[in-house]
Amino acid sequence: MATEQQSRYGDFLDRVRRISNLRSAGMLLSWDQQVMMPEGGTPARSKQLSTLSALSHELLTADEMAADLDALEAADLDADQRAVVRELRREHDRAASVPADLVEEISEVTSEALPVWQESKEADDFDAFAPTLERLIELKREYAAHVDPAADPYEVLFADYEPYLDLDTAERVLERLRERLVPLIEEIQASDVELAAPFEGRYDDETQMVLVRDVLDTLGYPWERGRLDTAPHPFMSGTQFDARVTTRFKEDDPLDALTAVIHEFGHATYQLGLPAEAYGTPLGQSRDLSVHESQSRLWENHVGRSRAFWELIAPTVNEHLGTAATPEEGYEAANRIYPDNLVRVEADELTYHMHVILRFEIERDLIAGDLDVRDVPEAWNERMDAYLGVRPETDAAGCLQDIHWAHGSFGYFPTYSLGSVLAAQLYAAAERDLGDVDARVREGDFDPLRDWLRERVHRHGQRYTTPELVEEATGEAYTADHFLDYAETKYGELYDL
Amino acid sequence: MATEQQSRYGDFLDRVRRISNLRSAGMLLSWDQQVMMPEGGTPARSKQLSTLSALSHELLTADEMAADLDALEAADLDADQRAVVRELRREHDRAASVPADLVEEISEVTSEALPVWQESKEADDFDAFAPTLERLIELKREYAAHVDPAADPYEVLFADYEPYLDLDTAERVLERLRERLVPLIEEIQASDVELAAPFEGRYDDETQMVLVRDVLDTLGYPWERGRLDTAPHPFMSGTQFDARVTTRFKEDDPLDALTAVIHEFGHATYQLGLPAEAYGTPLGQSRDLSVHESQSRLWENHVGRSRAFWELIAPTVNEHLGTAATPEEGYEAANRIYPDNLVRVEADELTYHMHVILRFEIERDLIAGDLDVRDVPEAWNERMDAYLGVRPETDAAGCLQDIHWAHGSFGYFPTYSLGSVLAAQLYAAAERDLGDVDARVREGDFDPLRDWLRERVHRHGQRYTTPELVEEATGEAYTADHFLDYAETKYGELYDL
Repeated sequence: MATEQQSRYGDFLDRVRRISNLRSAGMLLSWDQQVMMPEGGTPARSKQLSTLSALSHELLTADEMAADLDALEAADLDADQRAVVRELRREHDRAASVPADLVEEISEVTSEALPVWQESKEADDFDAFAPTLERLIELKREYAAHVDPAADPYEVLFADYEPYLDLDTAERVLERLRERLVPLIEEIQASDVELAAPFEGRYDDETQMVLVRDVLDTLGYPWERGRLDTAPHPFMSGTQFDARVTTRFKEDDPLDALTAVIHEFGHATYQLGLPAEAYGTPLGQSRDLSVHESQSRLWENHVGRSRAFWELIAPTVNEHLGTAATPEEGYEAANRIYPDNLVRVEADELTYHMHVILRFEIERDLIAGDLDVRDVPEAWNERMDAYLGVRPETDAAGCLQDIHWAHGSFGYFPTYSLGSVLAAQLYAAAERDLGDVDARVREGDFDPLRDWLRERVHRHGQRYTTPELVEEATGEAYTADHFLDYAETKYGELYDL
Repeated sequence: MATEQQSRYGDFLDRVRRISNLRSAGMLLSWDQQVMMPEGGTPARSKQLSTLSALSHELLTADEMAADLDALEAADLDADQRAVVRELRREHDRAASVPADLVEEISEVTSEALPVWQESKEADDFDAFAPTLERLIELKREYAAHVDPAADPYEVLFADYEPYLDLDTAERVLERLRERLVPLIEEIQASDVELAAPFEGRYDDETQMVLVRDVLDTLGYPWERGRLDTAPHPFMSGTQFDARVTTRFKEDDPLDALTAVIHEFGHATYQLGLPAEAYGTPLGQSRDLSVHESQSRLWENHVGRSRAFWELIAPTVNEHLGTAATPEEGYEAANRIYPDNLVRVEADELTYHMHVILRFEIERDLIAGDLDVRDVPEAWNERMDAYLGVRPETDAAGCLQDIHWAHGSFGYFPTYSLGSVLAAQLYAAAERDLGDVDARVREGDFDPLRDWLRERVHRHGQRYTTPELVEEATGEAYTADHFLDYAETKYGELYDL
């Protein structure tokens, strides 16, 4: 690369790092807000976050950035540099195409929407939320039209979360899940098998905290680069230098926190596996939501809900909880299917996807204009009935349960299921490459699996697009086959189908 | 004000708020680094902080800011608006006068200086630190020459912390302290009186944490706008919405944490008393270091070390520590003078000032070129002998003890003593206005004092310059009289002089 190009690329990278540092600072401010901040801090925190996000938006859409991108696309760059330019081009074009006043209006309407949604949910009054939801749909359609007037607006919104996975692929995967999971869940409902429930009882927060810390120790969570705290909703936040996890505790269900912590450990392990030297550039940043979710689901489901893991962990769990579960009973408890559960975030590994699919179908129809906001409750309840055989008695327990739409997040839900599907595909590839991963897990040796994931997924950052990364890591295109095989085998055996 | 001027002032204020939000975000990142961050997070955190500080520097020195200031200085503004313009003019001119590469060099040399200082201190090897200290002095002289080539360089550096208090006034005050405190301390050393020490023993962190939380409750610390955590060095960080305090615990000295927490409570109370509606502008920001320190010292010394406070608090302290101190014994314990203590941060209310004065005299001579770096240890030890009658046996316990010079903070030390002096002046004015403040304290009613401070000091933010604020709050010019009267009366009685 010529000296002038080198120096241009260097300046460009400085700008890119600035944007990234502003975003990392914003993420820390959000972590603090959810975990540490006293409630009185909200007004100042909102203003601090707005400033950080306005500045990174300005840097991203600045003329200098546009000029750098034009020049560097014509320059003789190596593959990694081209990947960095590709990612910034995509972000720049999207940000630059939407007028600042629309961005601001969406941000204002969503901040106002949150309390409206909360109150509507508390009062079980969908009508109170409907006008706000209508307005948000209007604004998001407008947003999509600015980004790409020729495209299906839902596709544009989906690409905010999954820029490289096309919606057709995603839709086909979700349809296959629906076709095969609905009958599988019906068979489970019809089964006489009653799985063990050895952890019934009440366990205080402190007991559960010591247990989940112990589990993080067992998994090899590096405390010198992380923390564990409590938050109303479990999440992970951080960088390759400092990736923090949170959980919450349900008094009557210690498996809830245990599962949440393993899930967030998966997210943190991805973050911590990103290359340190690429911090602040796309090569040091995680790929999109489905890939991140594949990492959390892989650890949560393929490790944390495996028989091998329960053979390892049952004594620890019993010791902390004062229970006497056999490994098999622990394994059964971690894999009970609850088709009559109405709440997505409390759903098991199978019915979870039906919750996602019904949301996807409804939001796609809403954005397309094929469904009226006022018909959402009925559409929701009908699908719950069709997919899981239950109808919520209230909208609070139905279409008002999730925060996503009040956030303006349309197109986000599918990434949850796409992540689980990819988790199964990656786990199958790891087993093909490493042999008996379960045997290692049973011995408490998680290094081979973690190293394989680091080598195949984490260390690449955003070097590859999502389909390229899947191909690179597994040798196959993205497919639901592994997930469906896994689900049918595992639950067929558990429920004697 | 004409419409055009109004709109210009509005745009200017938006820029000012952006700078302030960037700084508040940076402060939160620093708080997190000292209180919450796992050690592995350092590399990313440094980069995030650099970005925030570079961006706020750019916004402060931008052409738009310069043009706004020129236009608004010629505009017809009200008094509050003029105050905001005055503060930004000062900051802009100072920031714009120093070349960016010098700022960067100072920042690099100080980051490198910290580990050098730490190692020199650990090895008790001043010579290892001397070249770095020389380089820092050179750079700070260069910095001062850019800001104001005609001025005394130490005066310029002092003005970084105290822009409105002139150095002559400060120097006169410090000289008066030295003249009157040296003989007072000698008299105390010669006295036969042995003050009570009812809290000797060992107390674990948890016991002390519960005690200091209880004391914060008693003082009325608003937990919905703050937190208490531990940190290696106690500090306060925050805004009017969220002002957090930290402390540390010494196993054999529970008064250390108690005093530190009351001190930081004073800082937090100032911050929390700033007007909420002015958040993000100088009217919503605290005045300079001496004023901030006056607030912490007022609560630490005039409240926390008063007989009235010990009458209130002794039962609580006894309950937590399992001691049986009378209020009078508690009062005595909180006011013991230790002239042979070598460490500033562990010094009592009187000898503290001698530690400050000797540092001030040495750094002033260093910056003036009247003292060679290699002669610092001897100058230090001679003054310790002259002022307190002790000589440190090592430089680690002498001139290497403080981090300030390694930080490049020359001109900072005097503000500690200036703050104590102002604390006494403010407390005297409060007593004049409110009558018997001690009687309120004895009853646990801190509202009148806090409200008086809010009314006279906090709510003004940076509306007034420091001398104007002192005059406004106390009806007098800044003076050491009240502090000296207070010290001589209090310690004369305690030590039977």
